[in-house]
Amino acid sequence: MATSSTRIGFGSDNHSGVHPDILAALSSASSGHAPSYGTDEVSARAAQTFEREFGPGTEAHFVFNGTAANVLALESCLKPFQSVFCSEHSHIHVDECGAPERFTGAKLVPLPSRDGKIRVEDARARLVRRGDQHHSQPGAISITQPTELGTVYGLDEIRDIAAFAKTNGLRLHMDGARLVNAAASLGVSLRELTRDTGVDVLSLGGTKNGLMFGEAVVFFRPELARDFKFRRKQAMQLPSKTRFIAAQFEAWLGTGLWKRTAERSNRMAERLAAGLAARDFVRLTQTRQANAVFVRIPKAWVARLREAYFFYVWNERTFECRLMTTFDTNEEAVDGFLRALDELHRTDPRSLES
Amino acid sequence: MATSSTRIGFGSDNHSGVHPDILAALSSASSGHAPSYGTDEVSARAAQTFEREFGPGTEAHFVFNGTAANVLALESCLKPFQSVFCSEHSHIHVDECGAPERFTGAKLVPLPSRDGKIRVEDARARLVRRGDQHHSQPGAISITQPTELGTVYGLDEIRDIAAFAKTNGLRLHMDGARLVNAAASLGVSLRELTRDTGVDVLSLGGTKNGLMFGEAVVFFRPELARDFKFRRKQAMQLPSKTRFIAAQFEAWLGTGLWKRTAERSNRMAERLAAGLAARDFVRLTQTRQANAVFVRIPKAWVARLREAYFFYVWNERTFECRLMTTFDTNEEAVDGFLRALDELHRTDPRSLES
Amino acid sequence: MATSSTRIGFGSDNHSGVHPDILAALSSASSGHAPSYGTDEVSARAAQTFEREFGPGTEAHFVFNGTAANVLALESCLKPFQSVFCSEHSHIHVDECGAPERFTGAKLVPLPSRDGKIRVEDARARLVRRGDQHHSQPGAISITQPTELGTVYGLDEIRDIAAFAKTNGLRLHMDGARLVNAAASLGVSLRELTRDTGVDVLSLGGTKNGLMFGEAVVFFRPELARDFKFRRKQAMQLPSKTRFIAAQFEAWLGTGLWKRTAERSNRMAERLAAGLAARDFVRLTQTRQANAVFVRIPKAWVARLREAYFFYVWNERTFECRLMTTFDTNEEAVDGFLRALDELHRTDPRSLES
Amino acid sequence: MATSSTRIGFGSDNHSGVHPDILAALSSASSGHAPSYGTDEVSARAAQTFEREFGPGTEAHFVFNGTAANVLALESCLKPFQSVFCSEHSHIHVDECGAPERFTGAKLVPLPSRDGKIRVEDARARLVRRGDQHHSQPGAISITQPTELGTVYGLDEIRDIAAFAKTNGLRLHMDGARLVNAAASLGVSLRELTRDTGVDVLSLGGTKNGLMFGEAVVFFRPELARDFKFRRKQAMQLPSKTRFIAAQFEAWLGTGLWKRTAERSNRMAERLAAGLAARDFVRLTQTRQANAVFVRIPKAWVARLREAYFFYVWNERTFECRLMTTFDTNEEAVDGFLRALDELHRTDPRSLES
Repeated sequence: MATSSTRIGFGSDNHSGVHPDILAALSSASSGHAPSYGTDEVSARAAQTFEREFGPGTEAHFVFNGTAANVLALESCLKPFQSVFCSEHSHIHVDECGAPERFTGAKLVPLPSRDGKIRVEDARARLVRRGDQHHSQPGAISITQPTELGTVYGLDEIRDIAAFAKTNGLRLHMDGARLVNAAASLGVSLRELTRDTGVDVLSLGGTKNGLMFGEAVVFFRPELARDFKFRRKQAMQLPSKTRFIAAQFEAWLGTGLWKRTAERSNRMAERLAAGLAARDFVRLTQTRQANAVFVRIPKAWVARLREAYFFYVWNERTFECRLMTTFDTNEEAVDGFLRALDELHRTDPRSLES
Repeated sequence: MATSSTRIGFGSDNHSGVHPDILAALSSASSGHAPSYGTDEVSARAAQTFEREFGPGTEAHFVFNGTAANVLALESCLKPFQSVFCSEHSHIHVDECGAPERFTGAKLVPLPSRDGKIRVEDARARLVRRGDQHHSQPGAISITQPTELGTVYGLDEIRDIAAFAKTNGLRLHMDGARLVNAAASLGVSLRELTRDTGVDVLSLGGTKNGLMFGEAVVFFRPELARDFKFRRKQAMQLPSKTRFIAAQFEAWLGTGLWKRTAERSNRMAERLAAGLAARDFVRLTQTRQANAVFVRIPKAWVARLREAYFFYVWNERTFECRLMTTFDTNEEAVDGFLRALDELHRTDPRSLES
Repeated sequence: MATSSTRIGFGSDNHSGVHPDILAALSSASSGHAPSYGTDEVSARAAQTFEREFGPGTEAHFVFNGTAANVLALESCLKPFQSVFCSEHSHIHVDECGAPERFTGAKLVPLPSRDGKIRVEDARARLVRRGDQHHSQPGAISITQPTELGTVYGLDEIRDIAAFAKTNGLRLHMDGARLVNAAASLGVSLRELTRDTGVDVLSLGGTKNGLMFGEAVVFFRPELARDFKFRRKQAMQLPSKTRFIAAQFEAWLGTGLWKRTAERSNRMAERLAAGLAARDFVRLTQTRQANAVFVRIPKAWVARLREAYFFYVWNERTFECRLMTTFDTNEEAVDGFLRALDELHRTDPRSLES
Repeated sequence: MATSSTRIGFGSDNHSGVHPDILAALSSASSGHAPSYGTDEVSARAAQTFEREFGPGTEAHFVFNGTAANVLALESCLKPFQSVFCSEHSHIHVDECGAPERFTGAKLVPLPSRDGKIRVEDARARLVRRGDQHHSQPGAISITQPTELGTVYGLDEIRDIAAFAKTNGLRLHMDGARLVNAAASLGVSLRELTRDTGVDVLSLGGTKNGLMFGEAVVFFRPELARDFKFRRKQAMQLPSKTRFIAAQFEAWLGTGLWKRTAERSNRMAERLAAGLAARDFVRLTQTRQANAVFVRIPKAWVARLREAYFFYVWNERTFECRLMTTFDTNEEAVDGFLRALDELHRTDPRSLES
């Protein structure tokens, strides 16, 4: 599972370091004393930055990582006897080691999906047994934007899901660990992509796009945030030197850095996808829309490719691989990877296993 | 509750920023790509540093904050139907918003204390109803070193508690949010203070002594750590870019920085306590042993003093106040505070309320 | 801990069997088929019985035992980051093996007490740090009526606690495992003792006064009961053949049986207490008000007395003993116990250890 | 959802009352005083009965209902970061309102099934990511015998699942809410069906076959039961007057009553299934093996049929219905139902919707 390379690979956007602007902001935030637990000046400025980006009345709270952002966002929407509709591929369902169930007490209901998106008709089909005390009661929908398969919901798709949720008394949560890549892909603002489409609460990730650590739970309905401070503390997620998360978000959100980094990683993914599409000995398996490329590669090549450019095999049976780009992915890495493929194709010709 | 001053005060050792050496280590750790979730080279080096400081076989795992370190350390020692003996003043009992109970399911049993330390005889008196299914079963003891009242357990005191714990099948947890200040106070190594006295699991804090964020759960019994990785992930405490916690601990533990910073803050607290002891219009309420000074100050002066040098009123009834020093507290601040006191004594003479 | 005697003793009011009228009601309820999970006719009739006894709008739900009644009643009043004030002797605090903390996530705050009752001033002194995210937030008060020490709150005492609770935004829960004994003692109706004094939610026990099993959570504020059905099911407390709990409560509450059984056990306790008070070689330690008698007995006699009449030693240090009477305690048992004491006094004279 | 009929229907085997022999046992157990919480003589005798039926060393503990039996049995096998493989139709997955997740913290992994049984190959396909801290770790398999669709695992099928479980370090739990119907169907003893096939822990239900209330968690591996008493108490499932559950199990298990009642209900289901199979205007959808019959009935007839003989529509889309028989189902009811069908067929001819 481990790799020791510090060379740029395609393993994950959390394999990259910290963006220089973020490092500078951290350094600058470190002067002098400041009150802890969110009562400092940097945190106050960050709160304003969130309101500028997402609209007045937006309430953002910092937590340490994406698991916590998702779990606490969901807890704000749910009672323990309720359930959440999510994609069968969703991170909350398959990659959180049961944290949502353990902490909220609620049940996840996975919906089938080929491209990572959920569809209203699948949710509707599971909207059963409401009021039946024997059955977990639907309480929320969680969607990931962009999805775990690198696809991006269009604004209309989100609006449709939000309308369905609202009609049926469900809350809509968006897991936006890479939200900025979706926004850059669609060319819309963060507000247009979330609050304006009907999202109730957002997990906004920065770690995968240049931050050192820290995520935000962003509430568009103040009533959901009412108890958040206590819930966060009890969930072991209250940072003491809060200014060091706040400073990162201020530098990233308030200056357009989020957009520049996201555009860069998307562009690199586009270049990579285009190169792969032009080679008939590999096959793209998902439409590239953000900073992930899913591709099937002949099994025999994978180990050698990974030595040079680390990446994950997404599906051990089909050898579908996931290639992620990030804010510091460069053309040299992309082109190098494609050349390595060509070299394997020349020296060790193989076809995709069917 | 908030203060906006960036001037050096005595509010908390988490009001300080990040030590320059730590900032440099963070910056240096940021070059290139590295695997996430603890499989990187910096994390591997940090693991070695922990073994050097605490002895072979020590297993340390990073979490984000002190609440998490305490809760996860306790969870490793407990079953949900058990209980933990702790001081009535302990942070886990009064300052974690119920996180230990919520996450472990276990009960905290506070023991009376005047100086923050617990005593074996008080624990023994509560060692009742073992085997009685109606009663939470004693499973662990948790002590804070230095205590929440700034006092320091001697090595013998810890050994006695550890012997009692071992004899009675209890685990011994040490909350070491400021452990380095106790080690510096006693002039012993971190290992002598913990593993060698019989501690089973340690919460080791760095944030209060120059780190930006990050704490370690340090196991001296490998069997307690067996499931820790899964428990940490499910508890929302797995950091993705782990190298940025590891690098801080490496720079702090491996170079003696922990000792230099702790000695500095202890020395400043000593200077402050000595100055206060020499003034008969205030009264020290606890023996100063680490970097906290507890002192009663005439009520009427408190607000004005806090404007210049922020600190917390520990007890709203007696106006006992807590003054904390930290790695960047300087003589100017200490002496300035004492001068401000003298000035109040001169212009607005008051006595302590009885 | 076990005793094999089927002779009438003073161990607990749950050592008795089932009242003949209850057995008859169970047998009668067993004819034919009936819908399960609370939708049957007996349950509908029992609901009306509760409204007659406690007033219109009262909502009662059945659970299996007292632990569940208390935990689910409290959960209805609390958020996980809150706390409950209760007596240091309260059953929820010392005899539920941590069930309240485990299931609600909340913290219990024990108040000191000599007679089992809590006092408003002790609650007020702990009403601190409201709004402080580091501290569990006071959310409810729980009182036991009669108390675990056999004393009975007067109506005014409850009204005062209720007023304090209301003023401060706390819910008032009453653990009424033996409520009928308190009502019989005070000569008031169940409604006067609960709803009319300001109780928000009641755990009403029947098992200790002639029922086979089954308790009720009785809500006087419908908004607290809104989600109860789901919470109860998720808490593993939904009975399937509900008619067999409902039939017992109907027969017990609706016919005055509760009063007759409670008066009988109180009368027997009174007889026992009077007999003990007249003997100067033992000493009553609490005022007898309901069906419990607390008395110190010379240590050397206890084992022999328990062979003939089982009872519990309440305090292993002082040899304070608890003698409980129940619906089928008879004069023969009471007088026999007193004679046995006299016999020990004659053959083996001892004094109380100081 | 409610029905008020006391006429014998086919709604559920928990719609029936209490078997006369059980009522007699309850009445007989009620004489005199007995210690509570499982230390009485009837409980001791019941423990011996369990050892006779299931083999020496079997450890059985009583709880109140099936939800609790399942949840506590699973908790004994699991750590919170683990998962359980179960059928997508399993009661624990769709009918417990999330109780398993809430109380154990673990995740349920539903396997696809047409007949209610799970298959080793489906479990094997999900035995992935072991050791990966991001993913809930497989810890147990839960099978229901007979299944929720009325089918019965053969001994070989259970042995295969048990062998797979053992090989892969998983515990095997059996939900036996109606176990006796499976044993009667296969003509085997309860021991042959459980312990001898490799089951680790069993939920044994009695309520659905003539008991008033009460289920048993039956451990075939003592190490799993080590902490059970404490876990049960904390889970609000410790009965006080335990003799009244013990007496029922003694009368039911020790006298062969379980077998007679199960054979009767199975025979009635067989008669019903045979009658339905002979009518081409309805269609059986599952093989009848125990006391459940699944059948599709023309939609227009359902309401009228349910008025006379209550039953549940299992699938609101296909109008697949579930007809349950129980210990007091008689031939009159079965034949009456078939005649009612014939009458509808004559007066209101319909076909099954495709």
